[in-house]
Amino acid sequence: MKKNAIKKLELGPLLDDDSMGLEAGTSSDDHQSIRLWLRLLSCSTDIETEIRKRLRVQFGMTLARFDYLAQLHRHPEGLRMNMLSRNLMVTGGNVTGLTDELEKAGFVARTSQQDDRRSFVVALTPKGRRAFEKIARVHEGWVVELLGGLGEANKLQLHELLGQLRVQVSGQLNADTPSDKETP
Amino acid sequence: MKKNAIKKLELGPLLDDDSMGLEAGTSSDDHQSIRLWLRLLSCSTDIETEIRKRLRVQFGMTLARFDYLAQLHRHPEGLRMNMLSRNLMVTGGNVTGLTDELEKAGFVARTSQQDDRRSFVVALTPKGRRAFEKIARVHEGWVVELLGGLGEANKLQLHELLGQLRVQVSGQLNADTPSDKETP
Repeated sequence: MKKNAIKKLELGPLLDDDSMGLEAGTSSDDHQSIRLWLRLLSCSTDIETEIRKRLRVQFGMTLARFDYLAQLHRHPEGLRMNMLSRNLMVTGGNVTGLTDELEKAGFVARTSQQDDRRSFVVALTPKGRRAFEKIARVHEGWVVELLGGLGEANKLQLHELLGQLRVQVSGQLNADTPSDKETP
Repeated sequence: MKKNAIKKLELGPLLDDDSMGLEAGTSSDDHQSIRLWLRLLSCSTDIETEIRKRLRVQFGMTLARFDYLAQLHRHPEGLRMNMLSRNLMVTGGNVTGLTDELEKAGFVARTSQQDDRRSFVVALTPKGRRAFEKIARVHEGWVVELLGGLGEANKLQLHELLGQLRVQVSGQLNADTPSDKETP
């Protein structure tokens, strides 16, 4: 009964990594995927939560603002605002609102493009670049502190496996969406 | 120069997984930690972004609401509102606001505790449980679809390594905070 439930993905509690961990021995490949996602999410959430807290406490900065500045830092030529949306959707930022705030703070400047009047291009100002790089150096120290003890061999192996996962997932995203439009 | 820059964690672009990937051969252990975090974050972000989109399109539900209901589903006895905050801080939810919305929708009910008048206990209603389980089954199908092709051996290995990472990180979080209070 319980195994059938697992196969049918109807086992409750449905989103509990630990309780699912108890099923590891008998788990189906579907179950493995779910356990893996739950653990991946909990790892990144634990680290992100701590970084979010430290950004707020030490720099009075939200993660959404930091990620916004980080994306622009990777693109000195500037980015269209619609390109900034994806990651910010996850960190809970609103692109237009963040752009207004950061422009007011003098960290970013926006210019309209000649070839496309509909979308603005946003770029870091020198002030914004200095501010970001100062915070980013401290941020990197936090990451080193949090992950440092894992061991280099484990880090390399984990990095490699996550790379394979990335390829697998992006392949699914680029594939035509299956019949997930129908509600159950 | 560039290697020194890496050692001093001053290499730019500071938060670009791909460009850092170019340094893999010469990377220090610190650099490995940063590359690993960036890849971990991009993996979970890619998957979370897709799931967020599907929840919105198919169920008109935010990830914050889904995570809120998922946490209560794991705790039929109910949870104090402050226990609901951690994960929701990441998914961008406001506990009080979400509780009000979901209580109004008839998905959750809140009661004050005898032993602690200051905090409410929130629990799923039967209606909320049915609604969550319906969506959660579809949600699990999405995860299976996105991760399924990775291969069972890789999934098990990745799950194990992420478990080690979790232990490492939680050890750091429980340790006394180091001298990261001083701004650079």
